[in-house]
Amino acid sequence: MDTPPHPHPGRTAGIMRFVRQRIAAREWPPGARLPSLRGMALQHGVSKSTVVEAYDRLAAEGVIRARAGAGFYVAGPLAPLALAEIGPRLDRQIDPLWVSRQSLDLGAQALKPGCGWLPDDWMPRDAIRRALRQVARDPDAPLTDYAPALGLPALRSQIARHLAARGLTVDPRRILLTDSGTQAVDLLCRFLIEPGDAVLVDDPCYFNFLALLRAHRARIVGVPHTPDGPDMDRFEAALREQRPRLYLSNAGPHNPTGARLSADKARRIRALAHVHDLILIEDDIFGDFESRPSARLSTDDDRSRVAQVGGFSKTLSASLRCGYLIAREDWLDALADLRTATTFSGAGLTQAVIARLLSDGAWQEHTRRLRQRLARAMTRAIRQLNALGLRPWHEPEDGMFLWCRLPEGIDGARLAQAGLQQGLMLAPGNVFSQTQAAGAMMRFNVSQMDDPRLPDRLATLIRTCPR
Amino acid sequence: MDTPPHPHPGRTAGIMRFVRQRIAAREWPPGARLPSLRGMALQHGVSKSTVVEAYDRLAAEGVIRARAGAGFYVAGPLAPLALAEIGPRLDRQIDPLWVSRQSLDLGAQALKPGCGWLPDDWMPRDAIRRALRQVARDPDAPLTDYAPALGLPALRSQIARHLAARGLTVDPRRILLTDSGTQAVDLLCRFLIEPGDAVLVDDPCYFNFLALLRAHRARIVGVPHTPDGPDMDRFEAALREQRPRLYLSNAGPHNPTGARLSADKARRIRALAHVHDLILIEDDIFGDFESRPSARLSTDDDRSRVAQVGGFSKTLSASLRCGYLIAREDWLDALADLRTATTFSGAGLTQAVIARLLSDGAWQEHTRRLRQRLARAMTRAIRQLNALGLRPWHEPEDGMFLWCRLPEGIDGARLAQAGLQQGLMLAPGNVFSQTQAAGAMMRFNVSQMDDPRLPDRLATLIRTCPR
Repeated sequence: MDTPPHPHPGRTAGIMRFVRQRIAAREWPPGARLPSLRGMALQHGVSKSTVVEAYDRLAAEGVIRARAGAGFYVAGPLAPLALAEIGPRLDRQIDPLWVSRQSLDLGAQALKPGCGWLPDDWMPRDAIRRALRQVARDPDAPLTDYAPALGLPALRSQIARHLAARGLTVDPRRILLTDSGTQAVDLLCRFLIEPGDAVLVDDPCYFNFLALLRAHRARIVGVPHTPDGPDMDRFEAALREQRPRLYLSNAGPHNPTGARLSADKARRIRALAHVHDLILIEDDIFGDFESRPSARLSTDDDRSRVAQVGGFSKTLSASLRCGYLIAREDWLDALADLRTATTFSGAGLTQAVIARLLSDGAWQEHTRRLRQRLARAMTRAIRQLNALGLRPWHEPEDGMFLWCRLPEGIDGARLAQAGLQQGLMLAPGNVFSQTQAAGAMMRFNVSQMDDPRLPDRLATLIRTCPR
Repeated sequence: MDTPPHPHPGRTAGIMRFVRQRIAAREWPPGARLPSLRGMALQHGVSKSTVVEAYDRLAAEGVIRARAGAGFYVAGPLAPLALAEIGPRLDRQIDPLWVSRQSLDLGAQALKPGCGWLPDDWMPRDAIRRALRQVARDPDAPLTDYAPALGLPALRSQIARHLAARGLTVDPRRILLTDSGTQAVDLLCRFLIEPGDAVLVDDPCYFNFLALLRAHRARIVGVPHTPDGPDMDRFEAALREQRPRLYLSNAGPHNPTGARLSADKARRIRALAHVHDLILIEDDIFGDFESRPSARLSTDDDRSRVAQVGGFSKTLSASLRCGYLIAREDWLDALADLRTATTFSGAGLTQAVIARLLSDGAWQEHTRRLRQRLARAMTRAIRQLNALGLRPWHEPEDGMFLWCRLPEGIDGARLAQAGLQQGLMLAPGNVFSQTQAAGAMMRFNVSQMDDPRLPDRLATLIRTCPR
């Protein structure tokens, strides 16, 4: 007998995990019949008793159900969508939501060079207090009523004006306000893609694109990124081979690499989109960090295949939640309906506060100062990290992110987990990588590296990290 | 020859509409082959040339594509999800989003007895101004940072306290804050259902439940509603025949009927949920309108199959958007992940303002006064509507809604459309009805019927409405 007659504990756990993943990914929907005991045993090279044990335990947990004489079935309807278990095999501790969770829930005393936003004291706190008081006084402030379906006209005009200052002409009627930039991307995905549709992303890309696309059960295809945009040979190959419906990317300084899309690549991507029936979603959330605007996929004269997304959480406040999307007219109506159906209406009061802040003359000055301060922090961080043996993949012209190669033999995920024990929140490369090709990389936020304790802590962490 | 050899303009438009609807409902996904010219002509009793004309025009619009010698295909990937065209045959002008659109986008000068909220001047505007000023002054106010994944702890505690005052014991750790009650229902649906899953709703029910469930492409099953909850025979029959995954209903005074769930029916529904593997979502958005709490599907001791949703848009402000959901622990973690993936985080500043408002002693007094004022408005509205020949289906004990039968021969949709011409926004019965069985009904909001111009306008409208 090749396989032992008694259940094997490690293998039992393996079978259980396998079943759970299939259910979580909804490959096996509620009510689906599980493979027979014999089939499963053969497939996994384990004994039948191991499968019996695994199925029995899953049944005891209510994950599956036995039907007398008819095998085992996925229990319905309690089969919640577990994001972390969908998609490629990942280190379960470091899934794409890992950085979000740590960033959002770690205490204020933690050092967070891995987080994705500016420190609180870089933000225009006084201007926000002032705007709150102004709105509290304003007899016409939208204090209690629902906002119009597209959002407060005053803010939509301010956004158009604000984009015009960056050289983008946008009709305010083409702007739909959302509760966040992420929600705008989510709405577009709900509107445009079906489970199983292929979507191109940059590899590496913003980790939450991966989490969001998994929630949509898209087939995510990573295209290697270079300092001036995607690798075009690989991009074209992916178009031919995968027939993607969407390319989701971010404009301005690229997250996490700080790359800068070239005008030539922007043109080529637009042309390819027409040939290959591809839609482009451009997340412009970092646009205000650019001293000199880089190329955009969106152009003033043709929005037929490009939707643009933006928001204020990076430069103004992440607590005043508001994002927006710009899309062609026929999409916008349907998107507004979809938004009404799924969140009803926007936060009129928040929109009014942001409209005041944007109309304030101090706003341009605030973003100008942010850019200068970031440029200084970038120079300092590059020096600091070089001294520790971390090498920038590329020296970004703008923005807060620096994508670094770790010293030889150090694994990013392991370093991040060790860091957490010491109150240090890091962003390991693979959370940004669909193909898990960035194990030796780490994203740093240069604005979060001012704390004098940081260099020593990082040095110790790197020295003591097992290789 | 039975059918004319030349394309028939009306029939061409009919075929085009038929194709568009199939594509919008995604029955024909991008890339799907359209029926052959001959097949389509036979199926619709039109000439082949009519179908050729329709297909050619759709191809010119880019909706479908011809492939040489291989027929016509749905053009991909531009096939946006058009909510209004999914679901049962509806009057296209009066779909479930009709009331939302009119309510959100009609000017302030319109009379809105059809809208779903209280007039601006019933809301605690001064208290909101005060809370805004307090937050502006508070050195610890969350002005710029992202909120924790579950939402601001201060507000979650206030909500638990607030529910305790209504007799519901809830652990604040089981509360997830969302951007609206609707978003909470949407998150639960994303988490729990698949396209094609059957979902039970009350018939009539809140129209946006229908729009939301269509966005999820659920199979919606309406169960007739009675003054003390669903018709239990029909509810049980639907469980046996349709095997639904969810029952989505609203607690407190029912929208649109003002019905009140009895303790007996609540018990029976809970018991049936266990037997039939059914999940219950209870939207408690109107709970604060009850002088005497009615039965709930949620109980303190067993939340294994019930998720509860709430918010503040009805009693506090719809402009300070915030909702919440209460669910079992293992769901809550996954829901928080799903929320992070799809909207990232909540509006911390809004949450802080609401926490202040709820902690204000004036809050209980405000809701008490609202209830008294609504009770008076209800009595007055019943008298007013009776005088016009509109008969309440049931006299509600609480809340703002009155569900009325129109005078013999008047169609609600037609009346609502005529009303709109005269600046009168009405809520016709069928927008609330999955089975379109409420054409003779109309929902009135008694708090919106104070305007002295209303009785005459309504009377004229009814008199002149074609029967």
